[in-house]
Amino acid sequence: MDCVVFGLDEEDLKILLIQRGQEPFKGQWALPGGFAVVGEGLEDTARRELEEETGLKNVFLEQLYTFSDPGRDPREHVVTVSYYALVNLSEHKVLASTDASSAAWFGVDDIPRLAFDHGHILRTAHERLRGKIRYQPIGFELLPERFPLRMLQAVYEKILDRQIDKRNFRKKILSMGVLDELDEIETDVSHRAARLYRFDIRKYDRMVKRGFNFEI
Amino acid sequence: MDCVVFGLDEEDLKILLIQRGQEPFKGQWALPGGFAVVGEGLEDTARRELEEETGLKNVFLEQLYTFSDPGRDPREHVVTVSYYALVNLSEHKVLASTDASSAAWFGVDDIPRLAFDHGHILRTAHERLRGKIRYQPIGFELLPERFPLRMLQAVYEKILDRQIDKRNFRKKILSMGVLDELDEIETDVSHRAARLYRFDIRKYDRMVKRGFNFEI
Repeated sequence: MDCVVFGLDEEDLKILLIQRGQEPFKGQWALPGGFAVVGEGLEDTARRELEEETGLKNVFLEQLYTFSDPGRDPREHVVTVSYYALVNLSEHKVLASTDASSAAWFGVDDIPRLAFDHGHILRTAHERLRGKIRYQPIGFELLPERFPLRMLQAVYEKILDRQIDKRNFRKKILSMGVLDELDEIETDVSHRAARLYRFDIRKYDRMVKRGFNFEI
Repeated sequence: MDCVVFGLDEEDLKILLIQRGQEPFKGQWALPGGFAVVGEGLEDTARRELEEETGLKNVFLEQLYTFSDPGRDPREHVVTVSYYALVNLSEHKVLASTDASSAAWFGVDDIPRLAFDHGHILRTAHERLRGKIRYQPIGFELLPERFPLRMLQAVYEKILDRQIDKRNFRKKILSMGVLDELDEIETDVSHRAARLYRFDIRKYDRMVKRGFNFEI
């Protein structure tokens, strides 16, 4: 099991890597991961290992792909089921102590050479995220519960890697009717404080039942 | 490895099932599948087993999901990597002889009780197909190489399970510029013979490079 953990801060889309404490690839950076325990479902393995290695829990987690290329691992564990997780970095910036030597966030354009085929797994996850964020409301997982629209737009701009027109974006996202406009504004900001919004999963679920398609 | 094979004829979306020749679940219908051989990648396993059990080869095949719920299989093979395949039924209506007792196509609304958790795997595949067909040009895999627009519309109507407005559909699909209009019309039809079209993968690839998103 290997897991690609995405976070997003003001600068960039980030990936969580751990430095391997043992052979093979000792000292090299790798995706967090580990082996299943008998009788454990794979998603449970993913959540357990993620918490053990990085302290992260209760995060968005979804299966990515099962890699089975013979030769992908010098040991005998040839097949790995991979997951990806989306994390709100403002809450999880500090990583708890871990099994692994060390854990750190890397900018997606600044990833070191990874152990095993983890570079390939990471690229697969990045592609999945880019595709899925346009049709599923998963981008909110990268944000705090209450956020200004500027931050939501930044999620899309950083993941899709292109500029988005501010007026069109606001019009589109607000017309979907899945955001609650709050009676609150940002605090502790140097610029003019913006209105805060919240994603309303119940509204979203109701709309999906009526045949609505989320789409940015 | 288990594989959900979809086909489409004039009546309905169809699923290919095999009747199990051995225990457990002997005599019950199940998805085609089998076990990996050492040193074989999983997609190779899927293609090999599909050919052995159903005679199908060179079909569209994509990984679906890895199921690992403890207790999903009464034997010890708890984890299964599943795939789904899309087949042009007009070419593959007749199934070759097989490993399994027998193989047959079932309408998606007329599926018998399946062995193991195959009913669950089938529903997962059906959902994936419904989601993916709107954003990826995979529907063409269910059609012959040359087809009238009426047949393409039927692919979407049967998979999405709703009526689609004919004029809007034609306008949308033709405006994407990924179909070649041929100098040929249908033959052997009782109604007025319609113009034939072909999906042009090179045009599609060029458009994707320019940032175009396929979308129905």
